[in-house]
Amino acid sequence: MYPNIQAYDRGVMFNPDGKLFQVEYAKEATKKGGTVIGMITKSGIVLIAHKNIDEPLSVLSSMQKVFRIDAHIGAAYSGIVADGLHVVNQIRQAAQSHRMVYGEVKSLEAIAKELSSYMLQATFYGGVRPYGVSLLIGGIDTDRRLYEVGPDATILGYKANAIGFGKKIATDMLIKEYKDGMSTDESLQLGIKIINKVIEGKLKSDHVDVGYIEEGKEFTILNDQEIAKYF
Amino acid sequence: MYPNIQAYDRGVMFNPDGKLFQVEYAKEATKKGGTVIGMITKSGIVLIAHKNIDEPLSVLSSMQKVFRIDAHIGAAYSGIVADGLHVVNQIRQAAQSHRMVYGEVKSLEAIAKELSSYMLQATFYGGVRPYGVSLLIGGIDTDRRLYEVGPDATILGYKANAIGFGKKIATDMLIKEYKDGMSTDESLQLGIKIINKVIEGKLKSDHVDVGYIEEGKEFTILNDQEIAKYF
Amino acid sequence: MYPNIQAYDRGVMFNPDGKLFQVEYAKEATKKGGTVIGMITKSGIVLIAHKNIDEPLSVLSSMQKVFRIDAHIGAAYSGIVADGLHVVNQIRQAAQSHRMVYGEVKSLEAIAKELSSYMLQATFYGGVRPYGVSLLIGGIDTDRRLYEVGPDATILGYKANAIGFGKKIATDMLIKEYKDGMSTDESLQLGIKIINKVIEGKLKSDHVDVGYIEEGKEFTILNDQEIAKYF
Amino acid sequence: MYPNIQAYDRGVMFNPDGKLFQVEYAKEATKKGGTVIGMITKSGIVLIAHKNIDEPLSVLSSMQKVFRIDAHIGAAYSGIVADGLHVVNQIRQAAQSHRMVYGEVKSLEAIAKELSSYMLQATFYGGVRPYGVSLLIGGIDTDRRLYEVGPDATILGYKANAIGFGKKIATDMLIKEYKDGMSTDESLQLGIKIINKVIEGKLKSDHVDVGYIEEGKEFTILNDQEIAKYF
Amino acid sequence: MYPNIQAYDRGVMFNPDGKLFQVEYAKEATKKGGTVIGMITKSGIVLIAHKNIDEPLSVLSSMQKVFRIDAHIGAAYSGIVADGLHVVNQIRQAAQSHRMVYGEVKSLEAIAKELSSYMLQATFYGGVRPYGVSLLIGGIDTDRRLYEVGPDATILGYKANAIGFGKKIATDMLIKEYKDGMSTDESLQLGIKIINKVIEGKLKSDHVDVGYIEEGKEFTILNDQEIAKYF
Amino acid sequence: MYPNIQAYDRGVMFNPDGKLFQVEYAKEATKKGGTVIGMITKSGIVLIAHKNIDEPLSVLSSMQKVFRIDAHIGAAYSGIVADGLHVVNQIRQAAQSHRMVYGEVKSLEAIAKELSSYMLQATFYGGVRPYGVSLLIGGIDTDRRLYEVGPDATILGYKANAIGFGKKIATDMLIKEYKDGMSTDESLQLGIKIINKVIEGKLKSDHVDVGYIEEGKEFTILNDQEIAKYF
Amino acid sequence: MYPNIQAYDRGVMFNPDGKLFQVEYAKEATKKGGTVIGMITKSGIVLIAHKNIDEPLSVLSSMQKVFRIDAHIGAAYSGIVADGLHVVNQIRQAAQSHRMVYGEVKSLEAIAKELSSYMLQATFYGGVRPYGVSLLIGGIDTDRRLYEVGPDATILGYKANAIGFGKKIATDMLIKEYKDGMSTDESLQLGIKIINKVIEGKLKSDHVDVGYIEEGKEFTILNDQEIAKYF
Repeated sequence: MYPNIQAYDRGVMFNPDGKLFQVEYAKEATKKGGTVIGMITKSGIVLIAHKNIDEPLSVLSSMQKVFRIDAHIGAAYSGIVADGLHVVNQIRQAAQSHRMVYGEVKSLEAIAKELSSYMLQATFYGGVRPYGVSLLIGGIDTDRRLYEVGPDATILGYKANAIGFGKKIATDMLIKEYKDGMSTDESLQLGIKIINKVIEGKLKSDHVDVGYIEEGKEFTILNDQEIAKYF
Repeated sequence: MYPNIQAYDRGVMFNPDGKLFQVEYAKEATKKGGTVIGMITKSGIVLIAHKNIDEPLSVLSSMQKVFRIDAHIGAAYSGIVADGLHVVNQIRQAAQSHRMVYGEVKSLEAIAKELSSYMLQATFYGGVRPYGVSLLIGGIDTDRRLYEVGPDATILGYKANAIGFGKKIATDMLIKEYKDGMSTDESLQLGIKIINKVIEGKLKSDHVDVGYIEEGKEFTILNDQEIAKYF
Repeated sequence: MYPNIQAYDRGVMFNPDGKLFQVEYAKEATKKGGTVIGMITKSGIVLIAHKNIDEPLSVLSSMQKVFRIDAHIGAAYSGIVADGLHVVNQIRQAAQSHRMVYGEVKSLEAIAKELSSYMLQATFYGGVRPYGVSLLIGGIDTDRRLYEVGPDATILGYKANAIGFGKKIATDMLIKEYKDGMSTDESLQLGIKIINKVIEGKLKSDHVDVGYIEEGKEFTILNDQEIAKYF
Repeated sequence: MYPNIQAYDRGVMFNPDGKLFQVEYAKEATKKGGTVIGMITKSGIVLIAHKNIDEPLSVLSSMQKVFRIDAHIGAAYSGIVADGLHVVNQIRQAAQSHRMVYGEVKSLEAIAKELSSYMLQATFYGGVRPYGVSLLIGGIDTDRRLYEVGPDATILGYKANAIGFGKKIATDMLIKEYKDGMSTDESLQLGIKIINKVIEGKLKSDHVDVGYIEEGKEFTILNDQEIAKYF
Repeated sequence: MYPNIQAYDRGVMFNPDGKLFQVEYAKEATKKGGTVIGMITKSGIVLIAHKNIDEPLSVLSSMQKVFRIDAHIGAAYSGIVADGLHVVNQIRQAAQSHRMVYGEVKSLEAIAKELSSYMLQATFYGGVRPYGVSLLIGGIDTDRRLYEVGPDATILGYKANAIGFGKKIATDMLIKEYKDGMSTDESLQLGIKIINKVIEGKLKSDHVDVGYIEEGKEFTILNDQEIAKYF
Repeated sequence: MYPNIQAYDRGVMFNPDGKLFQVEYAKEATKKGGTVIGMITKSGIVLIAHKNIDEPLSVLSSMQKVFRIDAHIGAAYSGIVADGLHVVNQIRQAAQSHRMVYGEVKSLEAIAKELSSYMLQATFYGGVRPYGVSLLIGGIDTDRRLYEVGPDATILGYKANAIGFGKKIATDMLIKEYKDGMSTDESLQLGIKIINKVIEGKLKSDHVDVGYIEEGKEFTILNDQEIAKYF
Repeated sequence: MYPNIQAYDRGVMFNPDGKLFQVEYAKEATKKGGTVIGMITKSGIVLIAHKNIDEPLSVLSSMQKVFRIDAHIGAAYSGIVADGLHVVNQIRQAAQSHRMVYGEVKSLEAIAKELSSYMLQATFYGGVRPYGVSLLIGGIDTDRRLYEVGPDATILGYKANAIGFGKKIATDMLIKEYKDGMSTDESLQLGIKIINKVIEGKLKSDHVDVGYIEEGKEFTILNDQEIAKYF
């Protein structure tokens, strides 16, 4: 369709359709990552992430997909592993330095905007590539909130959302089965059911990372035993 | 027509016709954004922006399209989301720092020129890409004013104007139906009617952002209930 | 004729004919701008600029094409709008800082040379593009003077000159009808007649910017009513 | 499948599939290196590295493949020799400076993350290439740990793992024969058996580097006589 | 003859023949400029420059081709106008600063070498293009001297020389008709005769710039009346 | 085999096989250099280098191929002459500054690692090319040692080794004829015999550089008379 | 033979044969320069350089090809004129600053190495091109010496040597006719005879630059009358 595709691939430049090719390609990278699901629950949010690793001798606990960012915020990523660890580190530092400077927690929206601004730079200046990760950031400030930020640095809030390999299947199931006001337990059961569907019933409890927050509690990462209860 | 299109795509260079290809492509990006309409009213201006999101589980209030820049200025963008948030942030800071340094509000024209100058850099120096957004900036200083600034950094004032996906349909309708001296209510009704036309009658009130200013009042963003009244 | 045109398009490099392609292309950009006419009159100079905008709802007064640079100097540009505003700003600052440092007005030739030098940089160093504008700079210092400076940074003085879309038609008419010692009024009438010819008789008074200077007066921009008198 | 592969090869850019080509190519470099095997044992970890050199007059002891990073940590690499020495040096310095600043040993996970972060830069910024090495880092902090970090900067923990030329054969054998709770001796015998299998029975004791750690002891590199015992 | 010409055009690189293509192309630019002639006379030197402008309304006096560099030195250029003004400015400043620092005039050879060194940089480092001008620099220090410096930064002295559009015709005539020991008047008559030949007898006195120096006098630019005497 | 080889040639990038093309090409440069042979002897090391120059009027003593780096270290290079002189200078300075700072000689391994690290940079960062030289570095610290460092910055120790044009023939002969515990004289005779074989019996004593070290002596460069004794 | 030559031409990169193309091309540039001959004489050295200029009106004395670098050193170049003047200037400054800092003259070898190091940079870092000149540097320090340094920065000493256009013919004649212990006069006669042969008997005395040094004398440039004696 275009005489020579290579022109739009060097640096992050527009193609004739007004798309940033490198950003579009980076989005493909996020679609190869393990499925991550986030939901706003009755009193908080949950994050469920699939560890799409198929190596019998690997130590699954060494691969963290859900992170506590601050007492009131959690995050999970899908896409290039090292990119994910890097941007998670960025927002952790942003949350902590806000806490130290202002003596108060940073709002979810502010964290999401800071991440968006950070990821935007990688789509704007020469000599870098976009980040190949999408993140779900969730937590409670004045209310329960769940945001997605992707390679194009767009921020959008959701009641429930999925990223990664199973995004399409998972989103369809969320649209059908997610309901406002579900409890944490109901949400986690739904999330694990969905990921199990994505990988055709082969999900094991140690291949899942789970984090949640409820009003009055801090963001908590479940251990294997706690996760197993939802299987 | 040209032997090899790629030559004009690297960096922001002229093509043989004297066009800046990357800027032309960035304009395409703005045509993919939600339709935004601005009008000068009898006593101020209105901005109506469509949130072109088709995800059932998204939280539409998380995507802001109309912004208060200062007490007397509002703005709305169409195009790449993160680019829009970035340049809105730029002009907010410009307005605030002017207020602090000079103890007076910055004129609409000065804000538009500052934005133009900022966006021009991205069409001039190597190692960056143009911004993929158009903005409508409106408000009241010595008079009511409404400006458009796009990827090419051109500034032009309008009595009424539209940007984004529905620009053509919306402009045609504005030419027919917009009248000098319309009230804020009449303008908002017209704006919502136009966006509804653009998307063929499917507009819902939560998919619209609305802001307005009238003489003697500050620029105000309507909430969902207030917007619903115009449907 | 050349095996591969792309080689001369990256950065501002010579082609085998000794031409700077990007500069040639930038000249094309200036030919797309509204026609601008300048004339030396009996006692000063006039600048008449067409606002080639065809949008019914635009506010034409928001698009300035003729600028007062200093009390004794005016300028008008044709080409890329944001480039024009940028270089006009440059020469305004140059004139003002000269006035402040030396306590005297800067000569027309010095202003033109400063602009030429500024625009030359954009044809010389990598990582930038040439400016896509031509300017007519006119005024009175020890005598009446009118200069053109274009994308190639060449300076040339004229008794009467035209740039922009109608350059060819306008220049032909100037050669036939311009006379030394015309009054300001005669010159403005000729200028508006020429622009009207360029756009085939459709010129309206609000689509024209006019500035003039006469000995003993400062450079003055006419308002709409004053311009209408010449129609 | 792609019109022109070269577009994705300049700098570390995404291809349309969301892969970073240069990183994929760097992984190929690691597959040409000598096979390296790591195992968590009952009371520590072992690292066995094949020196794939076929030059009769070379002094094999001059090529070190297993390194003591700190008293509690060892590492081995496969891939480009000079890259390996360089990153080993980096993590050694990181471990030492942590010890000096904090007066305590750095955790295995922290070392692996520091290495990942260092190698990520080489996949992100222009003007560099990815590192063409994979590393196994193992040791004891609060528990026995074994990590792999490769050109893509991914970190993953393993109970037993292989990198380099014989990765596939070695991994298959480890899956079959590695057992939790093997002693250091059993692990070393298994490791040498595997490498011998990879090179079809031609392994000599001076072509192997061996390091191990057991609880209560420091990370130790075996000498030739000690290695010979496992043949 | 060469598989792909583009390789030698990016930046100032050698082609397989040992030529610097961009420099060769820049020389083409100098061949498009007005013819410039310089001669050593009995007691000084003369410079005659054609203003190759064919615009009836231009003010020819605004385009200077012959410049006084210092009391004892003049220069004239052919090629890209803005490049010419730029390098003339460079050598003027060099002459003045020498005068100020050392309290003596700078030798012609030193000025020529400084210019050569300045123009050499533009053929050596990336990110710039060669200057598209040749200059004749002439004057009196310990003797009468006339140098040419071109885009390749070569310096060569001449008794009489021509650059620009009519270089070939002019050089042939100089070889035939120039004689050692001609007076200033004879030289100027010859120079104007030659330029008139180049443009086939159509030369007018206002299309010529003339400068000369004689022993005991400063370098002087003739005015129109003085030039007309040689027609 | 690859659609377009050029992609892997710009800067030092990986090809799909995981090879660094520029480094592979630089290795070719080292194969064009004169043959250099190094051997560990009973009590030290010897270095013999062929000066592959075929110009009757050249002064062979002006081309040094074997260098004293420090009292206990010598080196010889094969490949691009100026690259060789440059890196020899680097390691000389490294040895001297170590001696000055620490008051002790630098170990052979440390010198080789410093050289490797220096040459690695040239394979890693953009804007440079790999060094087109291989070096043999030999001497005595706690034992006799002989290292090779090439364009890929790999370090490997040898008992005897050859680089340059005759590498293959020379290595084969070394494998057959080199023995542990040869005296300096025996080693030099062998080395000269091998180089003579490489160039088919035409070797003259002034086309050879020879250096050696024995325990208790400093590294010594032989003069022509001394070399002639081994012919 | 190579799929696409352009890959090896950008910047100074290796080709698959291990050659630096830009350096090879720069060598071509030196072969277009006037022939330069240097010889070691009984008591010093001589340098004879042809000025290959064919312009009747040029002042040949303005083009210097043989230079006094210091009292004991002379040099001559062949190739790109401005490059030659530039590097001659470099070594002059190096000689002078050595004299000033150390109070002694710099050795010929040190001057040649400094030049080599300077020219090497231009073959190593991006954003520059190699120098298109070869130099003969000769003089007396502890003995008579004559070096050639070319675009590849190689240093080689000679008893007699030729560079430039007539290198092949001149070298053949030198091999036949040059003898150790020739007097300065005999050497100069031979040199001029050779250059005359190169240009087929058309050599005139003003087209030659000659410099020589004898023990106890400083390096001296001959004037036209002195040169004419050797014709």
